[in-house]
Amino acid sequence: MSDDLEARIGRVAFNADGLVPAIVQQWDTREVLMLAWMDAEALRRTLTSGRVTYWSRSRGEYWRKGDTSGHIQIVQGARLDCDGDAVLLEIDQIGPACHTNTRTCFDSDLGRDEVGDRDLHPVIG
Amino acid sequence: MSDDLEARIGRVAFNADGLVPAIVQQWDTREVLMLAWMDAEALRRTLTSGRVTYWSRSRGEYWRKGDTSGHIQIVQGARLDCDGDAVLLEIDQIGPACHTNTRTCFDSDLGRDEVGDRDLHPVIG
Repeated sequence: MSDDLEARIGRVAFNADGLVPAIVQQWDTREVLMLAWMDAEALRRTLTSGRVTYWSRSRGEYWRKGDTSGHIQIVQGARLDCDGDAVLLEIDQIGPACHTNTRTCFDSDLGRDEVGDRDLHPVIG
Repeated sequence: MSDDLEARIGRVAFNADGLVPAIVQQWDTREVLMLAWMDAEALRRTLTSGRVTYWSRSRGEYWRKGDTSGHIQIVQGARLDCDGDAVLLEIDQIGPACHTNTRTCFDSDLGRDEVGDRDLHPVIG
């Protein structure tokens, strides 16, 4: 089991800082709640403990989500992308995901400008 | 309109390489399809053209999704997270998102180990 765990973690292409971005999605509603970063040990703890742990780049320490706020994240599944450099966590979020007390961290609209039809077709054809 | 666009882009906290990770979600089914990177100009093109453009870190060039494959992404909305360093794109994906021809790039299971109940409760009471 442990060897298998290390093999799975070994498939992740961590960046030069030893980190990988983790997209956090509520498993049933499929809301995207946040993006945070993990090193190999944070991923190991996440896959084995049932609770999500990140690496806090600002504080330089492990951060088990909810230890302070109570807003824990329970792991339902974890997936890796095709080139191994992004993780998708399917979790059950207890309470708000965001430290601002909103459900999702993606609470700010970047908008988009209206465009004509001509831009919406592929170039090839 | 242009000033407002620049103000919106100015809210993004690009990293030391001038890039921000963009999570790509199918707007109606809420599938997470991929994660890619944008600089300010890629985000500007995305918000104004209706088609998603990324910055390819491996090729060092702009990459308008679908120009080669036909698998374009039509922008439905764009959101920024609470600390400004991650973007969530809501898009309509034509065809597979992944270059491996799967619908989503997150096609590989990282698994999780079974855990007891005790780990699933917050530490605070």
